[in-house]
Amino acid sequence: MKKDARRIAWIGTGVMGMPMAGHLLDAGHEVAVHSRTKAKAQGLIDRGARWARSAAEAAEGADVAISMVGFPEEVQAVHLGPGGTLAAKRPPKLIVDMSTSRPSLAVEIYDAARQKGVGSLDAPVSGGDVGARQATLSIMVGGDKDDHEAALPVLSALGKLIVHHGGPGAGQHAKMVNQILIASNMIGVCEGLLYAREAGLDPEKVIQSVGSGAAGSWSIHNLGPRIIRGDFKPGFFVEHFVKDLRIALEEAERMRLKLPGLSLAKELYERLIEQGHGKSGSQALILALDGMKKLDSTK
Amino acid sequence: MKKDARRIAWIGTGVMGMPMAGHLLDAGHEVAVHSRTKAKAQGLIDRGARWARSAAEAAEGADVAISMVGFPEEVQAVHLGPGGTLAAKRPPKLIVDMSTSRPSLAVEIYDAARQKGVGSLDAPVSGGDVGARQATLSIMVGGDKDDHEAALPVLSALGKLIVHHGGPGAGQHAKMVNQILIASNMIGVCEGLLYAREAGLDPEKVIQSVGSGAAGSWSIHNLGPRIIRGDFKPGFFVEHFVKDLRIALEEAERMRLKLPGLSLAKELYERLIEQGHGKSGSQALILALDGMKKLDSTK
Repeated sequence: MKKDARRIAWIGTGVMGMPMAGHLLDAGHEVAVHSRTKAKAQGLIDRGARWARSAAEAAEGADVAISMVGFPEEVQAVHLGPGGTLAAKRPPKLIVDMSTSRPSLAVEIYDAARQKGVGSLDAPVSGGDVGARQATLSIMVGGDKDDHEAALPVLSALGKLIVHHGGPGAGQHAKMVNQILIASNMIGVCEGLLYAREAGLDPEKVIQSVGSGAAGSWSIHNLGPRIIRGDFKPGFFVEHFVKDLRIALEEAERMRLKLPGLSLAKELYERLIEQGHGKSGSQALILALDGMKKLDSTK
Repeated sequence: MKKDARRIAWIGTGVMGMPMAGHLLDAGHEVAVHSRTKAKAQGLIDRGARWARSAAEAAEGADVAISMVGFPEEVQAVHLGPGGTLAAKRPPKLIVDMSTSRPSLAVEIYDAARQKGVGSLDAPVSGGDVGARQATLSIMVGGDKDDHEAALPVLSALGKLIVHHGGPGAGQHAKMVNQILIASNMIGVCEGLLYAREAGLDPEKVIQSVGSGAAGSWSIHNLGPRIIRGDFKPGFFVEHFVKDLRIALEEAERMRLKLPGLSLAKELYERLIEQGHGKSGSQALILALDGMKKLDSTK
């Protein structure tokens, strides 16, 4: 074990969690891994991670217990449930939830952790599966500043931009801003490309013309070409995005903010799930909009 | 007069037209200028442009007659009206409308020009006043390919990216895609920054965290900081943007496309004009959204 190595509990081995935990092994940390499906953790076990039958077992005496799971319900179970990290006999010094989840849940976990003398950070990420694999994630941190600083040596193996946004929940709030920006922009990208198609334009030429100016965005450059090819494979799952949009809208309502663009995006993405595209990538939004072509077009 | 210089009629000396016509003078072209207000053309006259009392007079025997005006009604008058370019005794060889205007009007002008043996291009731009001053505009061209090629030596003094998108109106359609992309993205940018404010986040830190990833866009980087400072000075006028959004929506309806994001943007921007912000910059959208904060917040 390296001199500055930490004992890390890692929970969640999906498309994000798997490569992230791998970076921690590469950095020389001692990793205990738990996930719902052991088979999904096998790659990490083969590389030296220790299998734990529960989050509590993984967290037993750990320096840091990190979760990267799909939904708030799982986050809650992983940290606050009977087999959760805070149920360990010797709880971890610090827990870090890197899932995108409810800001209010981040506060709840923080409070529960404090009662046991455990630090707690919410630290959701942006950058997707590519960012996870290349360790170039942007990490948005909420919680106590000293816990943030204590976590930096570990988090810096996972991302290149790590910003402390404030107290517990602030990381999740920053991530919600990220999702709000993406949501309305995806509507614009899809509507623009639909318009281009109907107007008989070559959409690739249009992206060339408009992409370098005020209409330019990550989405038009990275997802625009996929939409044109009809490639709806997930970089980011529609069903995860809908979860995020629902959280953002609930939080906005709690703050008495009316965000009509966000409401529209949630509505369109929910329609997309009804159409069976929950496991497609977020760029599949164009399919929900395309279905809105006026039905009287044959008149 | 330089060997490859053209005789150019220039109509419109606003925030865009003024520097653009200046580049043509700099490139050694012979420029006759007309605008509604002679005083606004004085800078060009001082630099060697010849004043013309009408668009027709400016266009008399010109190689190219270029318009850069505010609204489709002006475009129509400048080219098809009694004192318009096509009313010249010796009409210009080619007319180029660089205003953002109706695709259907571009076709109408094209047809009227053809009847007089005159070529016609629609060539709206993106890049704003900065792009106009720096000659870095993106120019979206519709019309005949050979007219496009004939215009290139002139247009290349005004922009760095000049793309032919198809027949008459195709340039305007490409510009509409540009505006559709910007419209929904501006909603996302403003809603994201409102959410950040209400959640108690430092919005500059949030832009830092989210700007380099999938939420990144020209607008969040360039207009986000202005919104945070409360700087609503126009780069691009709200009233011009609303004109564009109306055209885009009319065209979409004609194509039987339903674009709910574009409809929402038009509605919000119209509310902004009602609030007296027609002469503000497009980033002022946040003021229309901020007014939507639920009124029962004092309960």
